[in-house]
Amino acid sequence: MYDILSVRKDFPVLEEVIYLDSGATTQTPVQAVNSMNDYFFKYAANHGRGAHRLARQTTDHYEDARDTVAEFLNTGSDGTVFTKNATEGINMVSLGLKWETGDHVVTTVVEHHSNLLPWMRLREQGVEVTVVGSDREGRVDPKDIDEAITDRTRLVSVNHVSNVFGSVRDVKKITQIAHRSDVLTLVDGSQSAGHMPVDIKDIGCDFFITPGHKGLLGPQGTGVLCIKDPDILEPVYVGGGTVHAVTTESYELEPSPSKFEAGTPNIPGVIGLGRAVEYVKDIGVEAIEKHEKELAQDTATRLAEIEGVEVYGPKDRTGVVPFNVQGMNPHDVAMILDETRNICVRSGYHCAMPSVDLIGVEGTVRASFALYNTKEEVDSLIKGVEQITMLA
Amino acid sequence: MYDILSVRKDFPVLEEVIYLDSGATTQTPVQAVNSMNDYFFKYAANHGRGAHRLARQTTDHYEDARDTVAEFLNTGSDGTVFTKNATEGINMVSLGLKWETGDHVVTTVVEHHSNLLPWMRLREQGVEVTVVGSDREGRVDPKDIDEAITDRTRLVSVNHVSNVFGSVRDVKKITQIAHRSDVLTLVDGSQSAGHMPVDIKDIGCDFFITPGHKGLLGPQGTGVLCIKDPDILEPVYVGGGTVHAVTTESYELEPSPSKFEAGTPNIPGVIGLGRAVEYVKDIGVEAIEKHEKELAQDTATRLAEIEGVEVYGPKDRTGVVPFNVQGMNPHDVAMILDETRNICVRSGYHCAMPSVDLIGVEGTVRASFALYNTKEEVDSLIKGVEQITMLA
Repeated sequence: MYDILSVRKDFPVLEEVIYLDSGATTQTPVQAVNSMNDYFFKYAANHGRGAHRLARQTTDHYEDARDTVAEFLNTGSDGTVFTKNATEGINMVSLGLKWETGDHVVTTVVEHHSNLLPWMRLREQGVEVTVVGSDREGRVDPKDIDEAITDRTRLVSVNHVSNVFGSVRDVKKITQIAHRSDVLTLVDGSQSAGHMPVDIKDIGCDFFITPGHKGLLGPQGTGVLCIKDPDILEPVYVGGGTVHAVTTESYELEPSPSKFEAGTPNIPGVIGLGRAVEYVKDIGVEAIEKHEKELAQDTATRLAEIEGVEVYGPKDRTGVVPFNVQGMNPHDVAMILDETRNICVRSGYHCAMPSVDLIGVEGTVRASFALYNTKEEVDSLIKGVEQITMLA
Repeated sequence: MYDILSVRKDFPVLEEVIYLDSGATTQTPVQAVNSMNDYFFKYAANHGRGAHRLARQTTDHYEDARDTVAEFLNTGSDGTVFTKNATEGINMVSLGLKWETGDHVVTTVVEHHSNLLPWMRLREQGVEVTVVGSDREGRVDPKDIDEAITDRTRLVSVNHVSNVFGSVRDVKKITQIAHRSDVLTLVDGSQSAGHMPVDIKDIGCDFFITPGHKGLLGPQGTGVLCIKDPDILEPVYVGGGTVHAVTTESYELEPSPSKFEAGTPNIPGVIGLGRAVEYVKDIGVEAIEKHEKELAQDTATRLAEIEGVEVYGPKDRTGVVPFNVQGMNPHDVAMILDETRNICVRSGYHCAMPSVDLIGVEGTVRASFALYNTKEEVDSLIKGVEQITMLA
């Protein structure tokens, strides 16, 4: 186990609040913020290997960050594309593949809106979309995905971990099932990368997507789209940086990843993300996973023991604990925890209405954990919820 | 005139180099970087007015930045959308309008690739694109745009200032011409916003686009798309944040700007951009324009006096000065200026090959100016180029 008190010093805001909203965004370590300050104050410039010294330094740091992220996720740098967020990555796949009427996509009911809407929108052009169900704990049976695949299925798109339930999908098995029928797979790793070991080559998926600002601890405004074969995907945006020859009649695209990164990218954000991933690597993602799971599973068990509290999601959850206090609106619960104990939790639909509809409630309170949370913080949450049940 | 020595203290890298590459990206003032540090260290969270205190603070700061930018450009906050960069904004328009075969777009030969390729790509779906020419100084005659408009023309897309020539277009007049025929106009303000007064309502254009990281002095990874009537544009990306009701069968989009900002945005970047725009406002954009023009026009005049140096662009240029040393590759000129005098200039095609082809050269050296540059820096550039001509 890593030294959690020393880790907490790298996240100054934790002195002020009990932050249990890492499912929405984690905090970013001082080291990553400092790397952005170094960029701004010492060498900020736009891309361009051939240009002046600042541009060369900027390009080197930006590409080093790409290598760091690609290596951490075990994938090739050439197919590792920096995006604004996970949502952009998923949309880039839905818009960048060529679809024909009658093509078929399989996804699941426990996806984030960002892994539902880009596929649902394809219905407008005649693509069929099957939304596979789950059990009440947010678990999807790979067999149901297998059964949903038809001879017109082009893609299976599933998350690695549900942001509503904390349930984990066997994405390697799902990929094997899909590949047996020559179907592509997309894994939305928004709640997995940095929270548990992720080995893209081992999973075997065709697309892996993660934001920079969740388990990878990077700043908001960053994301990663990893593509196994960049030749099968057209860029959505074209413009500066994506081409190497342009006349007013035609243009020639650069190879990946350049062809997917149109315009000036989020250079400081990517540099900060690279440093944040180094930070995660130094602590060790296995140790982080163990710590977060212990906290979350302990929280779930203790919350479930409180009379009038209902906890959702499976026993073998990752760091996401959704719950409700009977007779109380989840927003009110979140507000009281904030006001009385400086506890920051989310409440509502968590951008995944079909998931929450599954439970048959009007939203949940969600406590979600990261490497910097402590048992004492869990104690405070439990006490806070106990007190709230007395009000209810 | 503002106190330039005091301004320069806000940009620490200027102690190390003579930075004449603000056309690619400006430097970001300490105040804006500090505002991002405040975010990371004091209140970082994801969006959400109803959630805990950090999320509310984050949302307030993010929306304050929107108001600041909208007010600075004199446009409404509801149509002010934060993007990753200017390229994203232009692509959002080219992909977000509904096109029919035979529709027609007018643009010009002096555009950045990012204002050419998104239109040229529409040819694949039967849209016709006319690329209006310019004179050898990068000036476009509004009459030529008028003549190019047909009864099928849907959009005229032009830049405000050429990033290759520093020539300025009368975008108000062009908009009036287009509107007479019910044609929409897009103004690419990448080289104008923050460098000269921009009043979107006065221009009257339907879309105005700018990166955050040029004249507005914000960080890379930010941009702004201002839309007069957001109802005419569909979002390109859909997902979290863009919808308020989702089932597995259908979804309802939020109104603008939310419907255009899918996924977690670049929150620190936007907060930094808001602070940077305050900085520009405090100094005064009229004073900035005067200063940059004086430096650039002086540079152009003095460079043209050196034997063996050719300068491009019009006399009444803004802060962009392209030139070449006869018999020398522009990259070599840039490298020598860097190595001998710590001068950072761009060289090459500046992501605008058709513009450079106009001059009939294989690239240019480009010195570009911002509010923090000095006459002494111009002196050094002139001396550096004089020495290079002796080598040539």
